[in-house]
Amino acid sequence: MKLKIAVLPGDGIGPEITKQAVKVLKAVAERFDHDFQFEEAIVGAAAIDATGDPLPPETLELCAGADAVLFGAIGHPKYDNDPNAKVRPEQGLLNLRKGLGLFANIRPVKAYTKLLDHSPLRPERIEGADLVIYRELTGGIYFGEKSTSEDGKSATDVCTYSVEEIERLTHLAFKAAQKRRKRVTLVDKANVLETSRLWRKTVADISSEYTDVSLDFLFVDNAAMQMILDPKQFDVILTENMFGDILSDEASVIGGSIGLLASASVGEKSALFEPIHGSYPQATGKGIANPVASILSAAMLLEHFNLHKEAKAVRDAVEESLHMNVCTQDLNKNNYYSTEKVGDFLEGYI
Amino acid sequence: MKLKIAVLPGDGIGPEITKQAVKVLKAVAERFDHDFQFEEAIVGAAAIDATGDPLPPETLELCAGADAVLFGAIGHPKYDNDPNAKVRPEQGLLNLRKGLGLFANIRPVKAYTKLLDHSPLRPERIEGADLVIYRELTGGIYFGEKSTSEDGKSATDVCTYSVEEIERLTHLAFKAAQKRRKRVTLVDKANVLETSRLWRKTVADISSEYTDVSLDFLFVDNAAMQMILDPKQFDVILTENMFGDILSDEASVIGGSIGLLASASVGEKSALFEPIHGSYPQATGKGIANPVASILSAAMLLEHFNLHKEAKAVRDAVEESLHMNVCTQDLNKNNYYSTEKVGDFLEGYI
Ligand SMILES: CC(C)[C@H](C(=O)O)[C@@H](O)C(=O)O
Ligand SMILES: CC(C)[C@H](C(=O)O)[C@@H](O)C(=O)O
Repeated sequence: MKLKIAVLPGDGIGPEITKQAVKVLKAVAERFDHDFQFEEAIVGAAAIDATGDPLPPETLELCAGADAVLFGAIGHPKYDNDPNAKVRPEQGLLNLRKGLGLFANIRPVKAYTKLLDHSPLRPERIEGADLVIYRELTGGIYFGEKSTSEDGKSATDVCTYSVEEIERLTHLAFKAAQKRRKRVTLVDKANVLETSRLWRKTVADISSEYTDVSLDFLFVDNAAMQMILDPKQFDVILTENMFGDILSDEASVIGGSIGLLASASVGEKSALFEPIHGSYPQATGKGIANPVASILSAAMLLEHFNLHKEAKAVRDAVEESLHMNVCTQDLNKNNYYSTEKVGDFLEGYI
Repeated sequence: MKLKIAVLPGDGIGPEITKQAVKVLKAVAERFDHDFQFEEAIVGAAAIDATGDPLPPETLELCAGADAVLFGAIGHPKYDNDPNAKVRPEQGLLNLRKGLGLFANIRPVKAYTKLLDHSPLRPERIEGADLVIYRELTGGIYFGEKSTSEDGKSATDVCTYSVEEIERLTHLAFKAAQKRRKRVTLVDKANVLETSRLWRKTVADISSEYTDVSLDFLFVDNAAMQMILDPKQFDVILTENMFGDILSDEASVIGGSIGLLASASVGEKSALFEPIHGSYPQATGKGIANPVASILSAAMLLEHFNLHKEAKAVRDAVEESLHMNVCTQDLNKNNYYSTEKVGDFLEGYI
């Protein structure tokens, strides 16, 4: 298969980890006889520094013309504490999601047996946990109108959802559930929010088309609690943008390391793959960042194009690295490998 | 001291648990020679059933005229799954918060040594955890304009914050920090939300008035993760309404039981005390609900009026009950006591 992959390393540890993922994808191409072409572009703080724009038009163009985007990380502390910053690195990612129409963010979370000891949760609570979050990614309060009053004394964010936006994600979530344990949980705050009530109604309507899948509802506050009390109860979690952002980071503790969690963001025409962790500025350039989330994002990319054998080869390599303790510092305190060395091991194992 | 206390049992297990809290407060009044007067009123689903209004004017009037409000719980499943319900029980609580101007919700979370085994988190992660969440309670997306388009195809919630709303809560949080470990963490989503940027700017400005307190910032997604990874890092968490709702329910897992968590909601003139758990409809009337959160809310009430000895007596009683295993089913599976019996024990211990 021929694939044109746009590579957007981004900020912080983004470049280091993406490099490992590209290395692994190249090994996959070689072993399975595919033609993967990679082209890099800038985004985020790096792009602001170079061009003033966190998503330069050429970057968006490259991504729109590619079969898939491999994304690193975004964000830089120098913008976080400056409430007056006119441009922000994150805007690059948000514009990219919107520009490519990536409305569905898919975040699988699994408890790796080998890593049970790394989780802050008791092993018996998480062993066997296997859930996936379907987060709406191009709507809600992220993309609603934002404003500050003229005197600077008040600020507003608007959260809007249309039935259409809810429907298209809901279908994906139910289809995923059909291939899994056949259970969808809609997380919302329908006792307070009008948008949540629209979600509840729309999702309930659609659920009647999927008679083999059960649907239940959970308020987001309760969901945040249940996620820790009993993560095994969840199969597919369906939710809006902001709640999905919070819940998926929270859910990362189940796996024992956020350094392992990958995500896919898909739309009608494009698909982007990125680790759920951020740019981790404190670790930048030190060779300690865990490349596995980026590499598993690459596996999701392969899966997206139905390259199942190939995706499995990557996942098997990761399992083996965990088994052999070929891990970065976050997972192997005393005898750790560098970002590069973990990448080398995985590349070699393909 | 003479105190007029409005009692609003509300829905579900609300009446059962509130009854125990009143019993304990009566014992406190007797032992410490105070004059506490209790007057009951309806709210929530119970009030809708009786009057069509989840917060009848007489209830609000009673509360406004009282020194404090003791609140049970609110919510009924028959309204949750009906997106077209015109009135909702929760509206009663929201109107009450707004009507009484209860802008600050204070939720302390502590890991009880005796209950470490009940937490889904590993004991070493939580032992010694002691944090308090200052949640804004009368603003944000909870109280912004809500609308549905005429064709019913889209819905909107508006989130607005003013500098004033942020300031008054921030001062309370910093004052609390001064009496604690002198650390405030503002949780927001300033990389996406305009309101969060106003929070960040306003809180940073105010922090310069409290030179003995340190301030740091955390994005809400990261905070949801850190809350589980390392809850001991937190002292005072300051945040807006929706994030506070989510984080405080999440934080409840630290203590080992949501059945122990109390909260105070305070304003310029009024104060309301309620457990953070909900109406728990499945348990209603079975005598299995844990009354301790309501009783500890009563302790916060006493504290609010500087009745420190009295509050301590209640807390000591609770500690003793945990120690003696005089606990409801959630904490003592095999040999549990009923809601009433736990109340009796605590009453007797005062
Ligand atoms: C960087 C940030 C804007 C982003 C988000 O909030 O969506 C990130 O947290 C994520 O979840 O991908
Ligand atoms: C019942 C509900 C409206 C309420 C809220 O969301 O504020 C509850 O969850 C709480 O936290 O007190």
